[in-house]
Amino acid sequence: MKAISITNHLGITTVAINNPPMNVLTIKLINEINEFVLSLRDDRDTKVVVFKSMHDSFFLAHLDLNVINGTQGGQAASIEFNHMIANIKAMKQLSVAVVDGVARGGGNEFVMACDLAYATENAAFAQPEIHVNIPTGGQGAVQFARRMGKNKALQALLLGNDFSAKQAESLNIITQFVPKAEMDTFLAMTLGVISQLEVRDIVMYKEIIATSIRDEEAGAELELRYFLARAKEQKTETIIAAFLKHGGQTLREAKDIQGIFIDTAAELT
Amino acid sequence: MKAISITNHLGITTVAINNPPMNVLTIKLINEINEFVLSLRDDRDTKVVVFKSMHDSFFLAHLDLNVINGTQGGQAASIEFNHMIANIKAMKQLSVAVVDGVARGGGNEFVMACDLAYATENAAFAQPEIHVNIPTGGQGAVQFARRMGKNKALQALLLGNDFSAKQAESLNIITQFVPKAEMDTFLAMTLGVISQLEVRDIVMYKEIIATSIRDEEAGAELELRYFLARAKEQKTETIIAAFLKHGGQTLREAKDIQGIFIDTAAELT
Amino acid sequence: MKAISITNHLGITTVAINNPPMNVLTIKLINEINEFVLSLRDDRDTKVVVFKSMHDSFFLAHLDLNVINGTQGGQAASIEFNHMIANIKAMKQLSVAVVDGVARGGGNEFVMACDLAYATENAAFAQPEIHVNIPTGGQGAVQFARRMGKNKALQALLLGNDFSAKQAESLNIITQFVPKAEMDTFLAMTLGVISQLEVRDIVMYKEIIATSIRDEEAGAELELRYFLARAKEQKTETIIAAFLKHGGQTLREAKDIQGIFIDTAAELT
Repeated sequence: MKAISITNHLGITTVAINNPPMNVLTIKLINEINEFVLSLRDDRDTKVVVFKSMHDSFFLAHLDLNVINGTQGGQAASIEFNHMIANIKAMKQLSVAVVDGVARGGGNEFVMACDLAYATENAAFAQPEIHVNIPTGGQGAVQFARRMGKNKALQALLLGNDFSAKQAESLNIITQFVPKAEMDTFLAMTLGVISQLEVRDIVMYKEIIATSIRDEEAGAELELRYFLARAKEQKTETIIAAFLKHGGQTLREAKDIQGIFIDTAAELT
Repeated sequence: MKAISITNHLGITTVAINNPPMNVLTIKLINEINEFVLSLRDDRDTKVVVFKSMHDSFFLAHLDLNVINGTQGGQAASIEFNHMIANIKAMKQLSVAVVDGVARGGGNEFVMACDLAYATENAAFAQPEIHVNIPTGGQGAVQFARRMGKNKALQALLLGNDFSAKQAESLNIITQFVPKAEMDTFLAMTLGVISQLEVRDIVMYKEIIATSIRDEEAGAELELRYFLARAKEQKTETIIAAFLKHGGQTLREAKDIQGIFIDTAAELT
Repeated sequence: MKAISITNHLGITTVAINNPPMNVLTIKLINEINEFVLSLRDDRDTKVVVFKSMHDSFFLAHLDLNVINGTQGGQAASIEFNHMIANIKAMKQLSVAVVDGVARGGGNEFVMACDLAYATENAAFAQPEIHVNIPTGGQGAVQFARRMGKNKALQALLLGNDFSAKQAESLNIITQFVPKAEMDTFLAMTLGVISQLEVRDIVMYKEIIATSIRDEEAGAELELRYFLARAKEQKTETIIAAFLKHGGQTLREAKDIQGIFIDTAAELT
């Protein structure tokens, strides 16, 4: 039996994780995720990949403690886990973690490897590795440092304490806290908008963002190059014509730009 | 008729933007702003430049959609717009956007090009470009990436949704939310303090900040060099003497350092 | 009489600062702090260093204004102050500022040089140097830039205004606001956990964090190298065995991972 099950719907692929008894990141689960993620490499139909857990209490518990040792097998499994994090970060599609349970250690690193992460009041996030004598091994410390700054990161890594979803949002561990009761509606709206885009749109913005964080000037040059090239496309002309026809660049924009976009989309389909 | 009108008062220049019907960034408006900004290059009397809108609903709507195309004129206008953003970022003076309406696309990029931005409950900020098939073209994605981190930036750029002033403050799109009813008093106090400084003070801190963000060690070296040089100035000796005379370096500092600064300034004028 | 007094308790060293009348950073105090910090270089027993003030109103007022001038002695003292900031930043141990009063100028720079900073409702933080014609000289502008971004940093440096502990937490000047009434309990719990670690654990995470902030890929490589090496240690095997014995990697983790850590520690001592 597979530890992940995959369903597709209108450009959104959902990966449901079910690795009893508590969604530990075993080598079996890691291999399945790696295989799936690499299979998306040339997929232009899938725009968004949602990772969610089938477990009541755990999103992903953490990396299997039985591989954290000096054996050849243990070290190889740890490296496979580390590659899984890198593979998720390198996805062309938008990756989204929907977290309704505990995500510690490698589980939290999985969450931070995704482009977006939404979490409920049942979520908990932590990197408690130092209390078993190891550092994080899937970019947990790297991401904490870059997301919350050196001081708050150092405190979180030395304490290893849990963060709630609200705290995690404020510390940039996740994108946004969403109450469980509102999650389905929130995802339908948010991912519904994004799945209308092309994969190349998502790739373009990921590239501009990554470049800009490394080097502001290089990011600005790259962005302008994309802008001038995209401005020349027939698709741009078609959309702008429809947008102008339905009240774009008029006062309707002030309070109802979403309505203009809806009317524009309706005309073009 | 000009799209911008300029007034000066005690070192503070106010640029009122009025480009009917909705403050779109047309090539006419872009050219006027570029001309004005470049005219300040050797101006040592102007310390602060405030940009505000004369429109009820819009700060700046966005870049004129009629230039977003593959024509030579369109591409040239887009590049002029991009240069305007770079010119504002390169100003010696402190640039301040006061936003009491909608600022989307190029309008939001204008806001982020300014050093400081204050906005009211009527403001809205967004980069919705991807929904007309283009990326941002005036460093919108660059600034989102650097200000809110890669995850929240990617979400904002793919959704293109509006942010309120309070949200924009928390995401570093603007410096501070200020209720409309308090804006005039707030600006008088804040800019009143800053306009007492010299242009070289503003330039010095902009340079230290930019260097420090690129390279912490280089920033620290530059800061110390400025500190040691400034410590030698007669002006420093004079101010510190007056500051000490009025209770500087005594317990009065604990609760009333502002009073000491006021007494010091009174003595020196 | 010394301006600092030092006490040790279970791996935690407390430095109480008492430099009447108002805890100004005089050359005497600076020299004492430098001497103390450098004495810790090869100390493996001290895990945490807490800096606190004996003064009712001031944590550290600021750098002595009498050294801010062009004399050889003044310039040398300013450089010693600058080295003190660098020395604190380079400490192997975890440095913690506990702030229950005013910390302006060099006092605030001292706070930001520490790894962690906790502050009460009596604290105030500011870099008002520009109003005496000088920039910050102990990385105040550098740290503001890196912690709050260029816009909020520029505003804070040009205004020189006070921030409360809550504001300072949100701007990353400090790690966390802690009400005065809860501070002792908070410190006992937090530092109690961290003082169980080894100095090399603290050094490792400081190094991974610093590397990751400069270069994400380099940070990820360094982290993995440490992870694989630490996974091989006998100490890791021993702790993981005890952790598994007490309910690690079972459902007990969901709601009581702290209890598992406590049982694990009890078994190992």
